[in-house]
Amino acid sequence: MQNDYRILETVKSPEDVKKLDDSSLEELCREIRKKIISTVSNNGGHLASNLGTVELTVALHKCFNCPDDTLVFDVGHQSYTHKLLTGRFDRFDSLRKKDGISGFTRPDESNFDSFYEGHAGVSVSQALGVAAANKIKGNDNYSIAVLGDGALGNGMIYEALNHAGSCRTNLIVILNDNEMSISENVGAMARYLAVIRSNPDYYRLKANTEKMLSRLPLGGKEISHLFFSMKTALKNIIYSSSFFEDLGFRYIGPIDGHNINTLTGALMSAKMHKGPVLLHVNTVKGYGYELAENHPEKFHGISEFDVETGEAKNVSDSFSSEFSKIVCKFAENDKRICAVTAAMSIGTGLEDFSIKFPDRFFDVGIAEEHAVTFASGLSAKGMVPVFAVYSTFLQRSIDQVIHDASLQRQKMIIMVDRAGFVGEDGETHQGLFDIPLLKSIPDITIYSPSDYNQLEAAFKNAVYFDKNLVVIRYPRGGTGEKPEPLDGKSDSINFFKKTGSKTVAVSYGRLFNTVRSVIEHAGLNIDALQLFKISPIEKELFDIIGSYDNVILFEEGMKIGGIGEEIGFELCSRGFKGNFKLFAVSNSFVSHASVSQQLKQFGLDEDSISRDLIGYN
Amino acid sequence: MQNDYRILETVKSPEDVKKLDDSSLEELCREIRKKIISTVSNNGGHLASNLGTVELTVALHKCFNCPDDTLVFDVGHQSYTHKLLTGRFDRFDSLRKKDGISGFTRPDESNFDSFYEGHAGVSVSQALGVAAANKIKGNDNYSIAVLGDGALGNGMIYEALNHAGSCRTNLIVILNDNEMSISENVGAMARYLAVIRSNPDYYRLKANTEKMLSRLPLGGKEISHLFFSMKTALKNIIYSSSFFEDLGFRYIGPIDGHNINTLTGALMSAKMHKGPVLLHVNTVKGYGYELAENHPEKFHGISEFDVETGEAKNVSDSFSSEFSKIVCKFAENDKRICAVTAAMSIGTGLEDFSIKFPDRFFDVGIAEEHAVTFASGLSAKGMVPVFAVYSTFLQRSIDQVIHDASLQRQKMIIMVDRAGFVGEDGETHQGLFDIPLLKSIPDITIYSPSDYNQLEAAFKNAVYFDKNLVVIRYPRGGTGEKPEPLDGKSDSINFFKKTGSKTVAVSYGRLFNTVRSVIEHAGLNIDALQLFKISPIEKELFDIIGSYDNVILFEEGMKIGGIGEEIGFELCSRGFKGNFKLFAVSNSFVSHASVSQQLKQFGLDEDSISRDLIGYN
Repeated sequence: MQNDYRILETVKSPEDVKKLDDSSLEELCREIRKKIISTVSNNGGHLASNLGTVELTVALHKCFNCPDDTLVFDVGHQSYTHKLLTGRFDRFDSLRKKDGISGFTRPDESNFDSFYEGHAGVSVSQALGVAAANKIKGNDNYSIAVLGDGALGNGMIYEALNHAGSCRTNLIVILNDNEMSISENVGAMARYLAVIRSNPDYYRLKANTEKMLSRLPLGGKEISHLFFSMKTALKNIIYSSSFFEDLGFRYIGPIDGHNINTLTGALMSAKMHKGPVLLHVNTVKGYGYELAENHPEKFHGISEFDVETGEAKNVSDSFSSEFSKIVCKFAENDKRICAVTAAMSIGTGLEDFSIKFPDRFFDVGIAEEHAVTFASGLSAKGMVPVFAVYSTFLQRSIDQVIHDASLQRQKMIIMVDRAGFVGEDGETHQGLFDIPLLKSIPDITIYSPSDYNQLEAAFKNAVYFDKNLVVIRYPRGGTGEKPEPLDGKSDSINFFKKTGSKTVAVSYGRLFNTVRSVIEHAGLNIDALQLFKISPIEKELFDIIGSYDNVILFEEGMKIGGIGEEIGFELCSRGFKGNFKLFAVSNSFVSHASVSQQLKQFGLDEDSISRDLIGYN
Repeated sequence: MQNDYRILETVKSPEDVKKLDDSSLEELCREIRKKIISTVSNNGGHLASNLGTVELTVALHKCFNCPDDTLVFDVGHQSYTHKLLTGRFDRFDSLRKKDGISGFTRPDESNFDSFYEGHAGVSVSQALGVAAANKIKGNDNYSIAVLGDGALGNGMIYEALNHAGSCRTNLIVILNDNEMSISENVGAMARYLAVIRSNPDYYRLKANTEKMLSRLPLGGKEISHLFFSMKTALKNIIYSSSFFEDLGFRYIGPIDGHNINTLTGALMSAKMHKGPVLLHVNTVKGYGYELAENHPEKFHGISEFDVETGEAKNVSDSFSSEFSKIVCKFAENDKRICAVTAAMSIGTGLEDFSIKFPDRFFDVGIAEEHAVTFASGLSAKGMVPVFAVYSTFLQRSIDQVIHDASLQRQKMIIMVDRAGFVGEDGETHQGLFDIPLLKSIPDITIYSPSDYNQLEAAFKNAVYFDKNLVVIRYPRGGTGEKPEPLDGKSDSINFFKKTGSKTVAVSYGRLFNTVRSVIEHAGLNIDALQLFKISPIEKELFDIIGSYDNVILFEEGMKIGGIGEEIGFELCSRGFKGNFKLFAVSNSFVSHASVSQQLKQFGLDEDSISRDLIGYN
């Protein structure tokens, strides 16, 4: 049997990479690609970005001494090669599985991982903090941030570059420019990079400018012509690198990110410079796997797929795909409806909208803060902006939701996708905080539909009936494993009553489907109540549940600061004398595993709920 | 009697400004300055920035047609001239008073105010949203954002500029460059602006470059010399404007921001350009009031002062000034302690630290997101970062607190100043949301000291005893009007017990001082309990208060999502059968007024608390 990983399996740490000759390094890269493709096709994960950074990561570990030198991967989704080179090859098959290797960097997994990562734009801040600490402690260690060009549109990166440019530290920022963030890249910065990219001669020209100038011939008509050429060249040269140099960085690049010798040369040159350096590296997303090179957005973050055909193994409807249809249907008839996304048009289901209504579609790049406030500007002039965003990324714009959305008292709709457990992406991506972060905001309305009919009903309410800011939150994927029809119910509170029950089980979102399913299937004499509008809670709720002996709540979200807490508080204030019990996510970040495993971990799966309820039958 | 406001009082709307001749406009500006100085000296407010933007605002209203054209002031603190020109001169004496004119723009005050403002960096996003809506609706109205150079260090501005640069809309961004944000300006962008500022000829040179080049003499030694001068000039010219032009803006400037004719000329030229324009205006903070020109940081945001001497009328100690002493004392003996501020070294009390420990002090500019994540980088290498920030501005970095502070499980301390009611700055600045936003974060510790001893005790715990992320929150100003000594108590729960009481009053922070004072002075037979550590709540609390007949809670914060809600929920879960009552801030944004008035508005002043408690005596 042929050994596919002859060299890779001998690499136990970056020290082993340093010993390899050029041809072995090339073979190593081929083996890494093979391993990544095979693992992601089985486990899902980030593919295109990892295939694009194989040589870069190998070169980084060849040139630097981690963990003394600190390597920070922005988002951390492109760290697979790094993991394979730092002692995790043997366990790599467990990628994204419960108790297995995480799809992002995690310090508790390896001391080569500097930070828990998952959100875009943080790497330069972290690396600069490390560099500043190194300087205070008086050591010469390097601190290196690796980020994609998509992250360059994020404000935090700019804040960090601005600060870094005025600090004399051993900071090296590697701009991994693959002409693509998750969706198509947007904004002026993207256009700017395209100019540089298309003319690799700029940097070389710049280096030679002084020399060329000193050799200029004097006199004759030629000089005039030459002068004008020089002017253009000079302007282009300066233009090409000035953005980063304006910010105080020494700029090197752009260089070929798939040539290890070029990369190591540039990295060694970056090490020589005192003060912050930006190294601009051109890579190809999906490099080495033709299907991914041709469709990098499809192979950005994917579920299990067939390596030969590139086809996903499981495709099904989801709240995102239903939202896609709903928003287009409404926008057809209502010209006020605009859609805003922060580089997530595919993930949030806005791609169809972008094609059908390009004039009313805005992809602002990975810039959730700007997205909300920009939407408030649209709203001020009578538009109805719909910002679709993942729960975890909405965390970025909480101040804007308070200050620029709610306080302005204008109509705005935020569609919060991936609310609740998200599964394999793990703790940095969980949608568990949106309710605690949003519910204290004055005059906010929050819906948590349990099925697609309710999703549409919530959207309709938001556009035509509710005032001010409306949030509609729904989970990754569909309605749950065993959805029970809600019979088209979409009142604020939907009540499924039996005769003589002394117990009511309360829930919302997809979890309600599980709760109702348990009650129906086990034939329990327990009433079920669904909250469709979860904030503000209708006072009627307390009249209803206050009369039961037992109120049992199930919540797919944080226990502290959640809806269950609010209900318990209100019952207490009203002198409720019965039993009240809340099952929710206790004080912890939730690691990667399947959604079912995560539900089980917190007692929110069918078996646990059944066990909890049966005592009250 | 001489009329100080001969022209100003005739200006009822911007239309009246358009009718004035040059000399009347100059007189108008003098009168506006007089009015602003006199009002702020009585009411407190923002002085230096408003004195610096008198001519600019007059010119804006001369050149544009508001409210059809939309004028957005970043932060909104520099909108006093705008208010005086838009029908609010008669009521201007009520500035920052209850039911009076707000110190920031408010659409419910005037339809000339486009948005509720208060936080930095949002103006370009809002103005771009308006411009995009105008474009969709097919009108030619202009949308103008006015921002200070300090805001340029903020990531949101960059996100918006990046987006705007790729949109062809009637957006005009006015950069009001006064060489100063609230604290000394920081970062590479500040240095970059300084280069432009120091050479006003750059822009003119640029315009003339083509002409000059075509007239060049040919031959002789002179050419060589000239060529080199040109090269330098050319580089500087291109350098000077390229940052904004790289982002897709037409750049105009820098121009003199105190010359109305220059300003109107530049504004008309900006209007002619199709697509986004950035107009760079140089102004002097405090212009026209010598004391403010010389000490602009002192006259940024101030309380009542004496116009002749510039001295503040009321000076007293505060939690901020006590924190200043404490952090310096600890840093003296512990070299790990670093301090981080987002352009608020004076307000948060870090100025002494910055002088005593410059190597461990970091002012990152108005960049709260970067501040937290940068601190996590310091922490990763063993430092103990202390980030001091106002509660309202911490809203900007909630994702970073979750993702880059708490999740990393490293030591970090966040000092949350101005927590609770803040008084005259009003709804955009209230510190009412930090508890709901923070308390659901796993493994967080939150202290709410009631006095300076507890402030120090909390800080000591944070540095030496607690793990992970610790937040210490305290109000603007001091310990409250009638502080009672806590006898040096600083347990997590501090209990003041009488004999036989069936009622316990629970509170925290400065409000506890009021609650205890009421009980002592009225001789009520009610026990008082102070929460010093408010999260996580010690389980012991529920054993204590669960045995009372009546549990009455007072909270200077949002009712929904607050600590009282959590306590009520937990009591309910434990089967508490007594009376539970919470007094807190109900679902609303809280407008400007004095802190006492705001406390009274929500039943949290001495009289109200007394009335509420007396029934349980």
